[in-house]
Amino acid sequence: MGNCQVCCKNFWCHSKNTNVRISLPAVCFLWQIAMIILFGAFVRYNEESDAHWPDYKKEHNITSDSENDFYFRYASFQDVHVMIFVGFGFLMTFLKRYSFSAVGFNFLIAAFGIQWALLMQGWFHSLDPTDGFIKIGVENIINADFCVAGCLIAFGACLGKVSPVQLMVMTLFGVTLFAVEEYIILNIIHAKDAGGSMTIHTFGGYFGLVISWVLYRPNLHQSKRLQGSHYHSDVFAMIGTLFLWMFWPSFNSAIANHGDGQHRAVINTYLALASSVVTAIAISSLSHRRGKLDMVHVQNATLAGGVAMGTAAEFMIMPYGSLIVGFCCGILSTFGYLVLTPFLEKHMKIQDTCGIHNLHAMPGLLGGVIGAITAATASKSVYGHEGLVNTFNFVDEFANRSVGTQGAHQAAGLCVALIFALGGGALVGGILKLPLWGDPEDCNCFDDEVYWELPEDEESIPAIIEYNNQMDSKRFDMVESNTLTVST
Amino acid sequence: MGNCQVCCKNFWCHSKNTNVRISLPAVCFLWQIAMIILFGAFVRYNEESDAHWPDYKKEHNITSDSENDFYFRYASFQDVHVMIFVGFGFLMTFLKRYSFSAVGFNFLIAAFGIQWALLMQGWFHSLDPTDGFIKIGVENIINADFCVAGCLIAFGACLGKVSPVQLMVMTLFGVTLFAVEEYIILNIIHAKDAGGSMTIHTFGGYFGLVISWVLYRPNLHQSKRLQGSHYHSDVFAMIGTLFLWMFWPSFNSAIANHGDGQHRAVINTYLALASSVVTAIAISSLSHRRGKLDMVHVQNATLAGGVAMGTAAEFMIMPYGSLIVGFCCGILSTFGYLVLTPFLEKHMKIQDTCGIHNLHAMPGLLGGVIGAITAATASKSVYGHEGLVNTFNFVDEFANRSVGTQGAHQAAGLCVALIFALGGGALVGGILKLPLWGDPEDCNCFDDEVYWELPEDEESIPAIIEYNNQMDSKRFDMVESNTLTVST
Amino acid sequence: MGNCQVCCKNFWCHSKNTNVRISLPAVCFLWQIAMIILFGAFVRYNEESDAHWPDYKKEHNITSDSENDFYFRYASFQDVHVMIFVGFGFLMTFLKRYSFSAVGFNFLIAAFGIQWALLMQGWFHSLDPTDGFIKIGVENIINADFCVAGCLIAFGACLGKVSPVQLMVMTLFGVTLFAVEEYIILNIIHAKDAGGSMTIHTFGGYFGLVISWVLYRPNLHQSKRLQGSHYHSDVFAMIGTLFLWMFWPSFNSAIANHGDGQHRAVINTYLALASSVVTAIAISSLSHRRGKLDMVHVQNATLAGGVAMGTAAEFMIMPYGSLIVGFCCGILSTFGYLVLTPFLEKHMKIQDTCGIHNLHAMPGLLGGVIGAITAATASKSVYGHEGLVNTFNFVDEFANRSVGTQGAHQAAGLCVALIFALGGGALVGGILKLPLWGDPEDCNCFDDEVYWELPEDEESIPAIIEYNNQMDSKRFDMVESNTLTVST
Repeated sequence: MGNCQVCCKNFWCHSKNTNVRISLPAVCFLWQIAMIILFGAFVRYNEESDAHWPDYKKEHNITSDSENDFYFRYASFQDVHVMIFVGFGFLMTFLKRYSFSAVGFNFLIAAFGIQWALLMQGWFHSLDPTDGFIKIGVENIINADFCVAGCLIAFGACLGKVSPVQLMVMTLFGVTLFAVEEYIILNIIHAKDAGGSMTIHTFGGYFGLVISWVLYRPNLHQSKRLQGSHYHSDVFAMIGTLFLWMFWPSFNSAIANHGDGQHRAVINTYLALASSVVTAIAISSLSHRRGKLDMVHVQNATLAGGVAMGTAAEFMIMPYGSLIVGFCCGILSTFGYLVLTPFLEKHMKIQDTCGIHNLHAMPGLLGGVIGAITAATASKSVYGHEGLVNTFNFVDEFANRSVGTQGAHQAAGLCVALIFALGGGALVGGILKLPLWGDPEDCNCFDDEVYWELPEDEESIPAIIEYNNQMDSKRFDMVESNTLTVST
Repeated sequence: MGNCQVCCKNFWCHSKNTNVRISLPAVCFLWQIAMIILFGAFVRYNEESDAHWPDYKKEHNITSDSENDFYFRYASFQDVHVMIFVGFGFLMTFLKRYSFSAVGFNFLIAAFGIQWALLMQGWFHSLDPTDGFIKIGVENIINADFCVAGCLIAFGACLGKVSPVQLMVMTLFGVTLFAVEEYIILNIIHAKDAGGSMTIHTFGGYFGLVISWVLYRPNLHQSKRLQGSHYHSDVFAMIGTLFLWMFWPSFNSAIANHGDGQHRAVINTYLALASSVVTAIAISSLSHRRGKLDMVHVQNATLAGGVAMGTAAEFMIMPYGSLIVGFCCGILSTFGYLVLTPFLEKHMKIQDTCGIHNLHAMPGLLGGVIGAITAATASKSVYGHEGLVNTFNFVDEFANRSVGTQGAHQAAGLCVALIFALGGGALVGGILKLPLWGDPEDCNCFDDEVYWELPEDEESIPAIIEYNNQMDSKRFDMVESNTLTVST
Repeated sequence: MGNCQVCCKNFWCHSKNTNVRISLPAVCFLWQIAMIILFGAFVRYNEESDAHWPDYKKEHNITSDSENDFYFRYASFQDVHVMIFVGFGFLMTFLKRYSFSAVGFNFLIAAFGIQWALLMQGWFHSLDPTDGFIKIGVENIINADFCVAGCLIAFGACLGKVSPVQLMVMTLFGVTLFAVEEYIILNIIHAKDAGGSMTIHTFGGYFGLVISWVLYRPNLHQSKRLQGSHYHSDVFAMIGTLFLWMFWPSFNSAIANHGDGQHRAVINTYLALASSVVTAIAISSLSHRRGKLDMVHVQNATLAGGVAMGTAAEFMIMPYGSLIVGFCCGILSTFGYLVLTPFLEKHMKIQDTCGIHNLHAMPGLLGGVIGAITAATASKSVYGHEGLVNTFNFVDEFANRSVGTQGAHQAAGLCVALIFALGGGALVGGILKLPLWGDPEDCNCFDDEVYWELPEDEESIPAIIEYNNQMDSKRFDMVESNTLTVST
């Protein structure tokens, strides 16, 4: 009985200290103050967001404000922003008693992470050598959102088992690792990865899985009662799923090239996503004795097509190519939920709450491979000369790179993402294992009550039972006394 | 008692086979594979999404990437996308135990439908005669979303009474019919219908109603216990309502002419919607003994103004004209819910779950008429010469068409939409009536349990009753034995 | 016991007449008809939304449709629209039994308010002197949404304690006052306030607080049982919070200058919001004995940074400046919820249901002050000559205004907003206190049942108790009679 388990929890589940009253505010204030100081020392507006823009326009013969990068990317930025905060946040509300934490911690770590990402990515990509300042514009804030997405994916593997302080620490390190890895992949190796199959999904996915492996909880079954969903929590999670699904074309196109690059990335992602919905639902039905669908698959595997199109979205993969990618990913990801997640938990000690292995890690890996193949098979007949140069940015020191070499470098980029994920995950997992961070007991996981003041009447159903029990015992007394008086 | 009904259902309601384990995956795979093959044979990027865009720009003296149609329509496309997946999906979650199906089936059929729509509409509108390929860009994916909207409207009439396989079949035929009908109305008759009052709402509405009439269930009252809403399911439905309401200006303007066309369509739709909220709520209050509002009206009739502005949104209907349209539609649609829906069910054997007759069919019809009148009364003094040519696209073979003729053709377009809806609905209804598709029993409608694995604890409230009953019977035994021992 | 209170309510709480069957429809129809007449007399499309746009383009040598203001602002408009209808609407769904009213009344008054705002603001800002018509375009509908935001903020203070008729009256007066106040601040004083810290938040906040003070209910504790939240209602409220939070950059940039103005406003708001999330959560945790977070703070105080950036968003406040603003506001707003709201209720007789004092009034005031300081310290070295002129619009009669003078005028603007809020609130509060409007009894507040038909099974939990009680009483009879027969 649920009621009984609640009692058990209250009696036996108090040995770990989950009080974060000192640590959480300390971390928040320390890091926010550090951000202010570092922003003061390093961050300024770039020429398109600075008040000197009218001068810049004159100098560069720009006739219209519509040439400001803002108007090419802002609508996409807002879509990405919705994915990060509503998409990821609500996708994780599926647990019956962990919705506050899912949405709230997602909000906290994303809001902190984007600030640190602006700095880390800024040092690598937007440093103005003339004055030593990071110059930010709309592309930087999109990239900051992207960077945080990696950490939110990792959060999915740890959902319900970590404290907000651990999540802040994980985000600090995750963003740092991400920025370095991204710099190596995009700038040194010069791989293309507009939608981040490699940099975001492969990295974020394996990073989270390794952390979850290090933090393995042998007695997690003690929280089994809370590890499922509730009818309405599943509907809330669909809000997350749908906003991720709808806006994924914006995710994969937000920082693609102006013009055909963004246009094509949208079409490819749109098609891959559509295709993966159909196959995910097909496999979900096929896997049930009576053909019933599983919400877990609909909430997650339907998105796999978007993940796998992250690298190749701007390439000329062709509409049917996108459909094939989605087709395969829908199947693969649903199989992952059916077979791999239980396998990973049982045999590899990886407790992957949200199944990020199936939604991000595997499709991300596949996306990297698809990107490498598509790049290696690119040709001037398909892209046109200028199109090829534009798409793969074959300029300056890369002007003579062949498409074959580009394909190899794409594959190398994927390896870098994996190495950073595995190494970084082990390191960060080790830090998070220190007994400092106020994480919950095994019997206390997946429960908002640990870190949140909950509304009182949420206890309504146990309360009714309680109320009835009280009434019953009173009644028994009455009945007993009554019977006795009568019988004497 | 609700509890008793649950038992009844379990015992008596199993004669129809609702197992879709073979049929649903078979249909999904078959059609998705067909899509891949057809896309391979027919679909390519258009000049604005192809990597040859830099060459195209040079050839056509386009100086800026901002001239790519993508930047004129992408923000609107994303709004429309939200309407299709979150708007329609959540609007239908109002039933207390059918939220999974509402959102999930909406997701499935829209994701499949947009692929088939890209092909069907592509053959009619975007076929490149030089190479036989359909060339797609952002306008095609908007139109695909529009096309699917027709089927989702029809879904609204059948909500809760059909299987996902039936919905896939309905979508296949619905999209096909839509594309033909749209081609006749827009290209042959040369009617204007930017927001689809005729092509989408009139067609989709009557198509769904006729299907619902063919599939009439005389014993649907056996599912009465599940045909209402729940407090929270009504709040979920408001998410759908509001996203539809807010983004309707984008819907009506998404494929309107660049510049003033899109601009004016937004303003007109914005005003019509605002006006219909006020009158819908007025009638809702007026119709209740104590002036109380009904969520059904707020969820639906408030949107009628947007439907009715679909055709005339780009015309110079004037701001007050838009307000009048919304004023009338808000009243008409609310009356529909109060009077017509019960009438249709009782006397015409049309069980219209979502009341699409009041939200789409009637206001769509009205929208077509308003469009015809507004077109017929257009004048050069109001539009300007070039404005008139632009708005009604009086070029090539239509260069000499008068506004009167245009008005007549608008009316003809409306008739075509109606004919396709009625004929197509009868045909598709007949197909769906075949006993092949795993649809639920009359006593089993509006229930997610038929096609979904549900979370266990959803049974909590019956479980409490059950628990209390068990406790009670034990207690009785105790009391009885107790009394007996005492009395002897 | 909740159950007992329900009974009490039913017995004692019927002295006030909350029947709005005549008044609500009357007000709705009257005002909607007035809108139609006034729009007919006064409102036309402006040159960018009129069919004469092709002629206008030629006359003004505009080469591309992308120069139409629509494409600079429409994406932002849609974001603002979402904030008004979903953001404000869902933010107020946190009460356990007032979600229908929160979303529904928000919908009604916003839909009415935007029409009246188009007229009021149009007379002041968009009147074409050549023909006496108000000419509307995308900027007008953004401003109408802004104007309504002020009334929705005021609604937050009165939430649960007023009737829909009172809200309509409040909106009529609120919009009128807003338009006058805005005209004085922006046009006469020539203060800058792109995101409306002063015009929207300070005005709306204090306007609502004064109304709430006039309508003080000494016995509101009689509705205490409904004044809290419910687990799922808090999750619904997070939908509102997140959409407000994500789209606030669009709010503050929607009517900023093209180019760098909009770009910079987005960056500043993005940073201030991120920062206020971190500090709001820090203070929330610090204030609880065991470090637990409070949903009220997460739902509200996280947004304070956006409010406070309303005036200075387009200025060169620098990224670190934005972070500092957010840092302070997150702390201040959370303290407000902890300390000021109870203080205001206890000692100043202001019952502020949503805590708008902490989310809007105080941060708005602070935002006005920050704007004044930032303006007064502006310099040519930071802005560039043209940048300074552009940002502060130092043209025509204001061409010689110094930044110091501008700072002083910003401060004067803030005072005007305050005066209008306090005076207007007292006036409107007085009108709303008249016993005409069908407002609920003190014991009947925060209850949807007063103005809404509720779904039946919402009564499920009380119904179970009821059911058990009935069973119990029957059982007692049986037991008693049983015992008696046995004992004789």
